[in-house]
Amino acid sequence: MVSKNQIKTITGLQQKKYRKEHKMFIAEGVKVVEELLNSHFELQQLFTTQNDFADIPHEKRVEVTDAELKKISALATANTCLAVFSIPEEENKLPDSGLIVALDEVRDPGNLGTIIRMCDWFGVTHLVCSSGCVDVYNPKVIQATMGSVTRVKVIYADLQDYLKNTSLPVYGTFMDGENIYTQSLPQNGIVVFGNEANGISKEIEDVVTDKISIPRFGKLQQTESLNVATATAIILSEFRRSLS
Amino acid sequence: MVSKNQIKTITGLQQKKYRKEHKMFIAEGVKVVEELLNSHFELQQLFTTQNDFADIPHEKRVEVTDAELKKISALATANTCLAVFSIPEEENKLPDSGLIVALDEVRDPGNLGTIIRMCDWFGVTHLVCSSGCVDVYNPKVIQATMGSVTRVKVIYADLQDYLKNTSLPVYGTFMDGENIYTQSLPQNGIVVFGNEANGISKEIEDVVTDKISIPRFGKLQQTESLNVATATAIILSEFRRSLS
Repeated sequence: MVSKNQIKTITGLQQKKYRKEHKMFIAEGVKVVEELLNSHFELQQLFTTQNDFADIPHEKRVEVTDAELKKISALATANTCLAVFSIPEEENKLPDSGLIVALDEVRDPGNLGTIIRMCDWFGVTHLVCSSGCVDVYNPKVIQATMGSVTRVKVIYADLQDYLKNTSLPVYGTFMDGENIYTQSLPQNGIVVFGNEANGISKEIEDVVTDKISIPRFGKLQQTESLNVATATAIILSEFRRSLS
Repeated sequence: MVSKNQIKTITGLQQKKYRKEHKMFIAEGVKVVEELLNSHFELQQLFTTQNDFADIPHEKRVEVTDAELKKISALATANTCLAVFSIPEEENKLPDSGLIVALDEVRDPGNLGTIIRMCDWFGVTHLVCSSGCVDVYNPKVIQATMGSVTRVKVIYADLQDYLKNTSLPVYGTFMDGENIYTQSLPQNGIVVFGNEANGISKEIEDVVTDKISIPRFGKLQQTESLNVATATAIILSEFRRSLS
């Protein structure tokens, strides 16, 4: 049974303002919820339509009907469970070693979630986002990470300031950059990816130390580009392939 | 001005059944529509809310209000134009040389569209789809290709039959495949990608000649995988990088 107040609070968590106020976020679907349960994230409440999650203390576990789940779900088609977790209070120490991904104003939740999943795959443990990027606790981001959000630390910061003060090389993708396939790429460095429509902003371009590009092989129109998630996949693969 | 009949016909084209019956499909947004206009696709009718596309003969160009465009649009947020094009009648000769991508039951329109865009980038001119793949003329596919559909030929076929009878090597991605980064990859071959949930089906696995895999570098759970569009990006990049 879900009360009207609970419905109001949970659907409110679809908005960043309420997530910030309540310090909570939602996750949906058995796979994502299970990964979060097996991590440092703290469960507030779990709603399920199934006879599952028997390990969860009964005061935190609520069996609901399909119709009730639909009312609290952020998905077009509700899954079989939805869980509310606390947003952890963490110190956000900016990373200064290893391979780091930085995002400049990435707005699409699906793109951020997919990029987090790729960071996880390629062993990138820290992702630094400009303050204008979409919120990592947006339900669509959590969904798209498929649980990888438990293994990749996402930190929001003044990106120009961070990149200006790091001793690491800062890579950025530009049309006129050096061919990524013929570069020798380090295992300590920051790779910046830009906004879906505008690419890397001028103020971030100013602090990029190494401009790179993914060559195109087809007969494209001049303005064509790869989307940010595709570019991230190809470039992280290039950075890591030498480890094989 | 859009008539009730036009609204019915155009929104009908969101369904495969009606696209097949009318031999027409829709495209939305200036960029995609312009790319289609500059290609072999034949325009039936263009609807625009702007004072643009002055080159289009007046019998094919209809100025509409935002409200009218919204009624015929397949998008959550309508763009400024929608065009109806004919589905070309083409002989579907299966490709037998070059680098070819084959898809086994890829169902998500966004994935197919993104894969077509990547084929275009990497100079892959032919994409062979199993008959259970999402229809290339689905409005969401057309949208996600960003116009690349004009440069990549998509052919639906009995995939097992095609792969069984080709003389080209057939590559497929599997957990236990050979490390893609240490393989010598040919410029003539077929690369198969599988369904979003189930990967490559047993009947297609049987005709794969070379099993490959993308190594993971993070500490993932055993069941984790990359999504099909990400895997396609990384693998096409690997096939082409030696050309640089």
